[in-house]
Parts: sequence; structure tokens; C-alpha cells
Amino acid sequence: MKELVALKVGGSVITDKDNYASVDKAALGRVVLEAAVAIRAGVSLVVVHGAGSFGHVKAKKHGLKDGFETQEQKQGFAETHYDVIQLNQLVCGEFLSIGVPAIGVHPLEIARQKNKRLTSLDASFVRRLLDHGFTPVIPGDVVLDDELNGSICSGDQSLPWLAKELKAKRVVVGTDVDGICTADPKTNKDAKLIPAVTKENLGRVLASLEEAKTQDVTGGMKGKIMELLALAETAPVTIVNAGKEGRLKDALLGRKVVGTTIS
Amino acid sequence: MKELVALKVGGSVITDKDNYASVDKAALGRVVLEAAVAIRAGVSLVVVHGAGSFGHVKAKKHGLKDGFETQEQKQGFAETHYDVIQLNQLVCGEFLSIGVPAIGVHPLEIARQKNKRLTSLDASFVRRLLDHGFTPVIPGDVVLDDELNGSICSGDQSLPWLAKELKAKRVVVGTDVDGICTADPKTNKDAKLIPAVTKENLGRVLASLEEAKTQDVTGGMKGKIMELLALAETAPVTIVNAGKEGRLKDALLGRKVVGTTIS
Repeated sequence: MKELVALKVGGSVITDKDNYASVDKAALGRVVLEAAVAIRAGVSLVVVHGAGSFGHVKAKKHGLKDGFETQEQKQGFAETHYDVIQLNQLVCGEFLSIGVPAIGVHPLEIARQKNKRLTSLDASFVRRLLDHGFTPVIPGDVVLDDELNGSICSGDQSLPWLAKELKAKRVVVGTDVDGICTADPKTNKDAKLIPAVTKENLGRVLASLEEAKTQDVTGGMKGKIMELLALAETAPVTIVNAGKEGRLKDALLGRKVVGTTIS
Repeated sequence: MKELVALKVGGSVITDKDNYASVDKAALGRVVLEAAVAIRAGVSLVVVHGAGSFGHVKAKKHGLKDGFETQEQKQGFAETHYDVIQLNQLVCGEFLSIGVPAIGVHPLEIARQKNKRLTSLDASFVRRLLDHGFTPVIPGDVVLDDELNGSICSGDQSLPWLAKELKAKRVVVGTDVDGICTADPKTNKDAKLIPAVTKENLGRVLASLEEAKTQDVTGGMKGKIMELLALAETAPVTIVNAGKEGRLKDALLGRKVVGTTIS
């Protein structure tokens, strides 16, 4: 059997965050091309992508983070799902155009949550697609929620579930920064890349984030690191800059690459 | 609880059969508007639509009727599914634009077949959508098949399954002719509408089709009548011309209308 790699591409990589429902065509094309190269080289891939400006705008407008209740929120829920599929189709279409048989899989149809946490996601269906040689492409989505009527199932939630259920050999997270840094590299030029986070150096890494004293960023970053550490119990995780040519492809193929590994 | 009506709209009604992946915008708009009027009037609706020129062209080109085997067929399977979703999005988008919270439900993700026959379709998910006040919109689609790898799950297959599982009060089939006729009304001006088919007059109806002696049409029509008779065991079926203003709406609301009823 081919080795399975779970790839997550952040919504901020492939969409234009500031413009509602607009895709970054060049970035999307590059990401898909590098993924296709890895597939051609023999890797079996499950792709998870964020919703970016296709999901966040309406979800925020209608306050869907905490479920839905009113008719107006139901309409917002349905419209958000529609937009998510529009983005997912753009991603699938890009794969199809270069000969990769990609199939969109929508969490709303195969997953359920309770109080914002996944309680089921039909990984066996995703497995059947993989076994047939398809490349499943799964967006962050709105899903039905047994407590809140609806909630958001982001890629950060479906990725660990799928990586575990499908026994992924490794996980690659494509972002718009080089990896985990000592501070926010977008606003702080002294930010340094942390090439590896392990249980051994975790204390030091967190301390260096504290020093940065940019509460918001370090808080968010800390949470992210703890999530990824949990994910790394399942399979080693590599975070790379999907915007720098070749890094995503190398990470997918298990090669050494500029980024942060978590194990 | 609101009464549930299952509506099937033929692919030939909403797409331009002769042009690959082209929608008949005027027809789609009218169908959706009449469905929306019925929903506003208190009917709960599950909508099934054919794939028309979005599905048939590639499915035929890649010979998907009898499953898939080769890489080229897998690509064709994925491309057909992509096209089916494109049409489904157009239908959902039309509903959303007039304030109906429609949600596309794709058979590939919730159904399985064995040798071209449905073995499962997650009607409980469709029920949950209805209970939340959404309008599920379900296209004819390609699905995984336990025997043939893949096969086609047309609206004619999902409609009876859903009507039965969801306990639909009635079924409305929107086509591009007035109903069941004594001959093909598109090619034979002597074709007469048969207003009602019952167990009692079934023999006479079939005999009148024989007289028409247009083997293809009567053969196809016979098969269709037998299918619809089986469906009518679940709920009364009305076939109407979706192209004639008001008929679809009246049928959805359970009013008397020009068409063929099967009971």
C-alpha cells in the first residue's frame, strides 16, 4: 500500500483574506502542482483546506460560531456552506485540470459535532476514495451540531481525526509563514524559526514565546503548538511555508525542508 | 409537522441537453420560484434533480454506466462528479438568492450501490436537514459501487428511496411534457394525455401505448410507468409539465392540475 500523507493548507494561503470569496489563483495553482508532484511520486494524499475568505465572512456576519437559531442564521448557514463548496470546487477543479482525480468531500454531509467538537466523521468513506485512487479534498465547513444546531468544523478539527483514522504516515501543514517562530514573523523582524519542537525542548520553546511578550500572538501560537503536539502523537507533523517554492512538495515526500517539525 | 413533498425535476427541464454543462436559466428560475412559493405556503420540500448535460456527456464519454477500471475512467468519474456539483450549486444558488436555505446533498457522499442498485442512502441526514428547516437539493450523481467500483445513481433511484424513508405525503415529477401520453407528444401530434393511471386502467394504458407502435418510446414509457407505479405504493405521484407556468406549484400544493396522476 502507498504511504498516506495528510496535507492541510491554510485558508490564508489559497484565498485573499481581505476580499470576500476571492481565491489567490497563483498560490492555489502552486500548492496543487506541488501536491500533484508528490502524488505522481507515489504518495497517497488526503487534502484538507481552510475556508479562508469563502467561509469566515458570512460565518462571522451571521454569528454562526455559536450555532444557529433564527431563520436569518439558517440562511447564513446555508450560504456559508454554498461558499465553502465554491472554494472546494476551485481546488478540485485545479487538481482535475492537471489530471489528478480529486473528489470534494464536505464535512456537513459526513460529520456531526456536539458543542463544537467532532463526534463523528465518516473516515471509511474517505478511505474507500483513497483505495480507488482518488484524492479526497476536504474543506473547513459548517456542520450540524447536536447541541448548537450548527457549528464550524475547521480543518484543524478534521485533520487530526482523519490522520488518526486513516493512519497517516505523516502530516504536512502548509501556512503563510516559515513555521513556528519565536515571535510573529509578519510583524517582528527578530522572529526566529524554531526548526523542531519535541517534548524535550517544549518548555524552552514556550518560554521563548513568553519572552516575545506579544500576548495575542504567543497565546495563539501556544494553543496551536499544543494542538499540533497532540496531533504528533498520531504522526510526525511538519509545518512549512506553502508560499516558498518546493517546500510543500519536499515535506510531502518526507524530505528535509525549512520549517518546523513536531514530534 | 409540515407535510413533506418529494419533488423531482428532470435534467432535461433545467439544462440544455445539447450543450455540455449549460443550464437553462429561465427554466431553472421558474422551477425554483414555484418550489419556493410552495415552501412559503407551508410545504416541506426535498428536491431531486437530474444531471442533464452536466452529467451525461462525460459519463457517456468515459463509459461510466458500467463502472470504472482504468485511470482515464477514474478521472472521468471525478470530473463527472465535479460537473454534477457545479449544476447542483447553480440550483442551490438560485434557491438561496430568493431566501430559501437550500443545501446540496451529494449521493456520492451519502450513498452506496451494488451492481447499479442503491444499497444505502443516508436519509436520516436528509431528515435532520429538513427538521432544521433547510431544503435539501439532491442531484443525480456518480457513486461508489461495491461491484463495479462506480455507477450512476440517478434521480429515478434516489427519489423512491427518499420518498419511502422520509414518508413523503406525495411525489411530484416535473418533466418537459404534459404527463404520460398515448405516444411521444414531441414527435406525434395525435399523442393524448392520460390524466390518471391506476391499477384498474393500467392494462388499457399499456395497450394504447402498444398501439402507438413507436417501440422505443412505448418501451421506455412502459418501464417508466412500472417504476412510477412501484413508487406510488409509497405516495401518490403526479407528473406535470414543469415548463408550463403554475403547474409545478399547484402539484406541489396538492391541487388539481393538468398532468398524470399515478396511484
